[in-house]
Amino acid sequence: MSKMEIRKAYLKRTIERVRPVDPAWIVEAQSRQLLVTKPPGSLGRLEEIANRVAAIQSTLRPSVARSKLVLFVGDHGVCAEGVSPYPQSVTAQMLKNFLLGGAAVNALARVAGLDLEVVNAGVIEPLVAEPGLLQRPIAAGTRNICLEPAMTAIQAKAALLLGIECAERACAAGYSLLAVGEMGIGNTTIASAMTAVLTDLAAEQVVGLGTGADEACMARKRSAVIRALALHRGRIRGPLGLLRRLGGFEIGAMCGFYLGAAANQCATLMDGFIATVAAVLACRFNPAVRDYLFAAHQSSEPGHMPLLKLLGQRPLLNLEMHLGEGTGAALAIPLVRCAVEAFTGMATFESAGVSRSEGVLS
Amino acid sequence: MSKMEIRKAYLKRTIERVRPVDPAWIVEAQSRQLLVTKPPGSLGRLEEIANRVAAIQSTLRPSVARSKLVLFVGDHGVCAEGVSPYPQSVTAQMLKNFLLGGAAVNALARVAGLDLEVVNAGVIEPLVAEPGLLQRPIAAGTRNICLEPAMTAIQAKAALLLGIECAERACAAGYSLLAVGEMGIGNTTIASAMTAVLTDLAAEQVVGLGTGADEACMARKRSAVIRALALHRGRIRGPLGLLRRLGGFEIGAMCGFYLGAAANQCATLMDGFIATVAAVLACRFNPAVRDYLFAAHQSSEPGHMPLLKLLGQRPLLNLEMHLGEGTGAALAIPLVRCAVEAFTGMATFESAGVSRSEGVLS
Repeated sequence: MSKMEIRKAYLKRTIERVRPVDPAWIVEAQSRQLLVTKPPGSLGRLEEIANRVAAIQSTLRPSVARSKLVLFVGDHGVCAEGVSPYPQSVTAQMLKNFLLGGAAVNALARVAGLDLEVVNAGVIEPLVAEPGLLQRPIAAGTRNICLEPAMTAIQAKAALLLGIECAERACAAGYSLLAVGEMGIGNTTIASAMTAVLTDLAAEQVVGLGTGADEACMARKRSAVIRALALHRGRIRGPLGLLRRLGGFEIGAMCGFYLGAAANQCATLMDGFIATVAAVLACRFNPAVRDYLFAAHQSSEPGHMPLLKLLGQRPLLNLEMHLGEGTGAALAIPLVRCAVEAFTGMATFESAGVSRSEGVLS
Repeated sequence: MSKMEIRKAYLKRTIERVRPVDPAWIVEAQSRQLLVTKPPGSLGRLEEIANRVAAIQSTLRPSVARSKLVLFVGDHGVCAEGVSPYPQSVTAQMLKNFLLGGAAVNALARVAGLDLEVVNAGVIEPLVAEPGLLQRPIAAGTRNICLEPAMTAIQAKAALLLGIECAERACAAGYSLLAVGEMGIGNTTIASAMTAVLTDLAAEQVVGLGTGADEACMARKRSAVIRALALHRGRIRGPLGLLRRLGGFEIGAMCGFYLGAAANQCATLMDGFIATVAAVLACRFNPAVRDYLFAAHQSSEPGHMPLLKLLGQRPLLNLEMHLGEGTGAALAIPLVRCAVEAFTGMATFESAGVSRSEGVLS
């Protein structure tokens, strides 16, 4: 086999390796929740989280002690349509800011004790390798989706494989809770176009303010999504076709990351709108990916909720954020840790000598 | 002055020392938010939190590095009415569980790196002093509010002073972010009766399931609140009168804690329903206390939201929890830390060499 064929086979195999979690573990975990010193159900959604992590790890002693956030960065040809209030050079500038620890996600990762890896999936500006940066640019940005497909089929597969590689490496290094984030000026436009296709909604329903577009900018964004959909909608063949025609390198890499993490039975926190587009895409490759995903937060982007509905997910946080970078995922890491620590670290009624409820629940 | 007069004067002075935060600091903090490398407003409510912490600490370099959760425990005479599915002995059993690290709040405090102090404010069972336990029982539980006032005026003041003492000590020890929790079998009944008075709502609107009452138990709980209100409602004189007639030792202590923390310009996270009753009570002593409070989470108890409305607060989390113990507050600690770390630890557009928005916001 050629190198390309080997890689193609590896992609296919990873997708096939993702298996639904065994619902018997959920039932076992629910039973254990009744033994620990709290009224049944009183930890609310923390119980639901812990039960699912137990099922993902196939154990009643799950651990999420070590967490890593992988931040995929890419540029977008659609910026030529004036869809962002920020110049495209901000993508590379922010990438450098991540490496220097000055961005919002760095601050949040410090508090959460979270390791951060930055991946250049295809920034326009040439960058040099440095600690904390994985250099894997697929190309110097994507093409303009208003005029042509964002990337070639080979590039789309390369983006997926990049994400799989990152997930495999994180799992092999012993990380037990993963999270993804993204940065790429113009990528809410890309994500909106993909969302319209994934949800069958109109452009108007899925285009939002992004990082703070004014009205003229919003009009250009809406127009770009409408034109891109007119050009591509009828010609999209499967999830790979959607990624190729309307996607981005960081979106493809996140999609691959979810696949790779799920194939390795690792729980993964999605960040907001753009990260969730990539998750829905991953579920089109294999619906079982869903069992490994946790929705960190509700973004203020209008396209986010319809995507979460497709995944059957309710976000853990709603703090009216819309920044990306993995900031929502970083904030949710302590919640997942708390859920698991309560599940594994609490005393039972028996061991603590605490009387149980005298009511129907005893 | 007698010892009692000195203590009374101290209570009065603490209440008077609470001053509203200076809104000029909020404005200054909002301006600083525009300088750091993120689109304006994109951190949503994290920005609102950081701005208020800056105003509370009167600095643009606020710190919430050291956090402490104080857990007040007390017993309630109203348990004689069969209002809880748990036997009253569970209060002391859970107190011991807190000291051994086996309860939900212990697990959450471990994840959040949060110091925990347990205060015996008036448990029925005699307890011996041990590390991590502050022994300050005001009495062996309160009286049954269906028959008589819960406590004497002297006991009510002692409860307030106990809370003030705990807050003063935490502030003097250098804690910059405080949180409160409570435990006391029967105290959702007490809190519901107090909520009815504070919000002018009927018993039916503020009595919830608590720790998991069945239908018969709920009926006894509702009946107890109705009878207690019939006995006391017309005779309540001021916030001290409300505490004395319908309160609990842990509720009075939490109320004092909020007053003491606010008097020392310290931000405090309220836990759920019962902790919020105490906060509304504290605001009846001095409305400026409100400026120092953060609502950690939305409890599933029906009386919680009307109380938060009175405080003009929106909860940070809604995870369908209803456990108490400070579990909601412990979960919200990392969120406040993240908000402050982003505010103080992020690079500015200038320092990071990141281009600003070209739109209306630049």
